[in-house]
Amino acid sequence: MPPGLKDVAARAGVSVKTVSNVVNGYVHVAPDTRARVQAAIEALGYVPNLAARQLRSGRSGVIAVAVPELQSPYFAELAGLIVQAAERRSWTVLIDQTDGQAERERHLVAGLRRHAIDGLIFSPLALAGEDLEHRTDIPMVLLGERVWHGPADHVAIDNTAGAADATRHLCDLGRRRIAAIGVQDAPSAVTAHQRLAGYRAALAEAGLPPGPDIEATVAGFHRADGAAAMARLLDSGDPPDAVFCFNDLLALGALRTLLSRGLAVPGDVAVIGFDDIEDGRFSTPTLSTVAPDAVRIANLAVELLAERLGAGAPAAGPAREVRVQHRLVVRESTAG
Amino acid sequence: MPPGLKDVAARAGVSVKTVSNVVNGYVHVAPDTRARVQAAIEALGYVPNLAARQLRSGRSGVIAVAVPELQSPYFAELAGLIVQAAERRSWTVLIDQTDGQAERERHLVAGLRRHAIDGLIFSPLALAGEDLEHRTDIPMVLLGERVWHGPADHVAIDNTAGAADATRHLCDLGRRRIAAIGVQDAPSAVTAHQRLAGYRAALAEAGLPPGPDIEATVAGFHRADGAAAMARLLDSGDPPDAVFCFNDLLALGALRTLLSRGLAVPGDVAVIGFDDIEDGRFSTPTLSTVAPDAVRIANLAVELLAERLGAGAPAAGPAREVRVQHRLVVRESTAG
Repeated sequence: MPPGLKDVAARAGVSVKTVSNVVNGYVHVAPDTRARVQAAIEALGYVPNLAARQLRSGRSGVIAVAVPELQSPYFAELAGLIVQAAERRSWTVLIDQTDGQAERERHLVAGLRRHAIDGLIFSPLALAGEDLEHRTDIPMVLLGERVWHGPADHVAIDNTAGAADATRHLCDLGRRRIAAIGVQDAPSAVTAHQRLAGYRAALAEAGLPPGPDIEATVAGFHRADGAAAMARLLDSGDPPDAVFCFNDLLALGALRTLLSRGLAVPGDVAVIGFDDIEDGRFSTPTLSTVAPDAVRIANLAVELLAERLGAGAPAAGPAREVRVQHRLVVRESTAG
Repeated sequence: MPPGLKDVAARAGVSVKTVSNVVNGYVHVAPDTRARVQAAIEALGYVPNLAARQLRSGRSGVIAVAVPELQSPYFAELAGLIVQAAERRSWTVLIDQTDGQAERERHLVAGLRRHAIDGLIFSPLALAGEDLEHRTDIPMVLLGERVWHGPADHVAIDNTAGAADATRHLCDLGRRRIAAIGVQDAPSAVTAHQRLAGYRAALAEAGLPPGPDIEATVAGFHRADGAAAMARLLDSGDPPDAVFCFNDLLALGALRTLLSRGLAVPGDVAVIGFDDIEDGRFSTPTLSTVAPDAVRIANLAVELLAERLGAGAPAAGPAREVRVQHRLVVRESTAG
């Protein structure tokens, strides 16, 4: 039989109610009384019954972070940064990977209350605003570009501007046949649509023609997709002299194809990615990229959620949208 | 007021007890009754109060997976595979990153009951057997080599044999000055100690002398550590003609240093890593490595935990130790 509130109370020489007040973090307990109770808790190895506490307080101290996939370094780094930010508030973080599947994303926002989660930081791939409205009953912060003007606080970078910056950099190098790798047709592929729009806008600015022959479609945003797309562009008869890849994994795959065919990067083909994952800092050549301020995204997401969970800020306040900065990082793959 | 058991019972035309039996997954409910109850649950949007259920059943349907860091691709891939295996059992997975810090690992094994976790799959870096004994009150499966003959089920590969295989491969290529990158002095750095032992054993087999000048110490197992260690080996006056790196991230860092100095890989220096992360399949040159069977590790960990949580298998049974196979993967960095 594990020790209970009564055992702690007896050892500390206080009432059960006082022990309960300490365990539940109420402030109106005298410091020396609190210290006596805590000493008794430690001596006895008392563990508060969290399930019972949850029933009373409605707070578990656990938040969830849901990302499409942990195997993607960008999401793994972002999840790690959120864990660090949440730890500063003594929150336990449950990480869930959705694989970007609509059914699992729906299940996630509909069903978390059952798992005693206080709040959710969610980077959806498949769901849009209307799918999320009226769906969730816990405070939520959305990450990424999938949902704008949705029902919850939202932190994102300006994808279109970032893509235009990357493409403009290739134009400034004097490249004239600049391809894109990462086009996706599905209406839900908002990241791809926004980055394509930025790419096309920058080409238009530079007076360069766009065209389906230099816009390579991919099934996913992984290295293998980038390697295959680059091979198709090279085999097309009129290969590009530069390529903007919609993320760094695609760019690392494209690099692999170029180098394995004996082409020089950036001599023959300049390559730039998006995300600034660690891999691109150690590849040969190192990878130019667009770097979102991931530390700021993680900190803001946790701050916004904390405000929603705070006593003074009801979860029903109007949704806020916060844009986070990005910057162009020039490395060897464009300026080697 | 959200719908409760009574509302579901009224709509389905059954007793509250029957609804409770369906919600709690008891088997002695007639199929058509179960279907009626489930239809009523869906129509009303009834969500079972998990906290209340936990108090009764002692099971939350949530397991935790704790790894040192998600930014390490090996652990991110392993966590992802465990999530997939757990989903087949309809378990929700809480992922926790410990950063390999002893205090956080202790807190984890001591404190999880408070968060209503049914079981834990844990890859400790800092804790050893005695730290874990008597510490945890929930079923646990340990991963990795940190703890052998500890208090819990354990799944691991044979690190020493894997390291010997990698080193032997370099010997077989005719290399005669084979360095190691990844040595760590801390007694808790068991991975590093085991891989060093395997490396030295293979050198001895081949009649090659070991030596401190070809055993490079690192602070961590990241790309930057590998890049710096490789630079020190090259600057030592008698550079190696091959290097075994204790993981792929170290090897990718070493590759970067070699290529940025104009050396040929494997012509001047052959490089092999350990883990078979995706990065090494797309680097130039592609990276030779030792591949643990990560899918099998993940599936076994979930199976062992499920057995501990099953009705017929008490959590107190004797601990089991399972070895998982590894294999040598030869790519361009040793055979290009």
